[in-house]
Amino acid sequence: MQVLKDKIQAEGVVVQNSLLKVDSFLNHQIDPNLMMQIGEEFALRFKNSNVTKVLTIESSGIAVAIMVGLVLQVPVVFARKKKSAVCNDDVYSTTVYSFTKKESNYVTVSTELLTAGENIMIIDDFLANGEAALGLTNIVEQAGANVVGIGIVIEKAFQPGAEKLKNAGYRVESLVRIQSFSNGQVNYV
Amino acid sequence: MQVLKDKIQAEGVVVQNSLLKVDSFLNHQIDPNLMMQIGEEFALRFKNSNVTKVLTIESSGIAVAIMVGLVLQVPVVFARKKKSAVCNDDVYSTTVYSFTKKESNYVTVSTELLTAGENIMIIDDFLANGEAALGLTNIVEQAGANVVGIGIVIEKAFQPGAEKLKNAGYRVESLVRIQSFSNGQVNYV
Repeated sequence: MQVLKDKIQAEGVVVQNSLLKVDSFLNHQIDPNLMMQIGEEFALRFKNSNVTKVLTIESSGIAVAIMVGLVLQVPVVFARKKKSAVCNDDVYSTTVYSFTKKESNYVTVSTELLTAGENIMIIDDFLANGEAALGLTNIVEQAGANVVGIGIVIEKAFQPGAEKLKNAGYRVESLVRIQSFSNGQVNYV
Repeated sequence: MQVLKDKIQAEGVVVQNSLLKVDSFLNHQIDPNLMMQIGEEFALRFKNSNVTKVLTIESSGIAVAIMVGLVLQVPVVFARKKKSAVCNDDVYSTTVYSFTKKESNYVTVSTELLTAGENIMIIDDFLANGEAALGLTNIVEQAGANVVGIGIVIEKAFQPGAEKLKNAGYRVESLVRIQSFSNGQVNYV
């Protein structure tokens, strides 16, 4: 997606050739017009998937997911992250380890918000090791619903997340795929 | 805002005559069309305020704020909540106590994302004791920017938040104002 590559080129900050900071338009400040363009792009890619609901995880996925929901005219659910285990019959839950933050979170969705047989599109901002996305697929499957695919804004293709998800049988649609960082620049697949 | 009252009537759940759960359209599942209507309403109310940026706090404020930003064509910033203190010159920070969760959070915004002289519109989903909104005004003022007003989706008018904010000189615009709960019903001001 060229407009996203242009934005990363203009405003992204590569830290120590390993991390891409996009705090000016995605992860802290958010560019509403770019979110709408991203929403339209994901909606286009999944237009034949009969999506009934969009599922993301707080916080950075929400702005993207709400635009996808707006274009596809379906509700959006964001999974909640908690530090402590949830012992509650009213939620589907799973554990997600963050390699970036070196911590585990319990991720929950109210059982009322996912129904067996629904077609769920998962949205997240970044895909690296795939832990968050896999956690969300786990939750969808606890509900007996179908994962129609996983939409990712920025994939770090040199990390194993996308391959793990594809090997598990999921469709992965990434808007940009980063192959490497070099000299403070982003190289795409 | 009648459409919001209708939605609360249809889907809101009053718990023990003290708490309103709106997990089906605002706090966990999100209705994108309602968010757009809310965004348009806030944009209309602040159309003469020369808003340059929308500021909210993760997570439930994000979906509302992004629609306001889309309609007003300005960027959105969400403040981050952290459990532990942040000792970092690169952020504005404040402490916000949540009466609901009985815990304090450190709330931060990168100094790069707020500029002196900007006109900031603050958005949040609920206003009860006003701690979160006051924390955000504090952060805006650390940056030397102006708070043009505070847009609230659901105000609990029987709690002191709105009065505290107005006494501090801020314009508060709440889309619905709840006076009380009785017999599982919501009574508006």
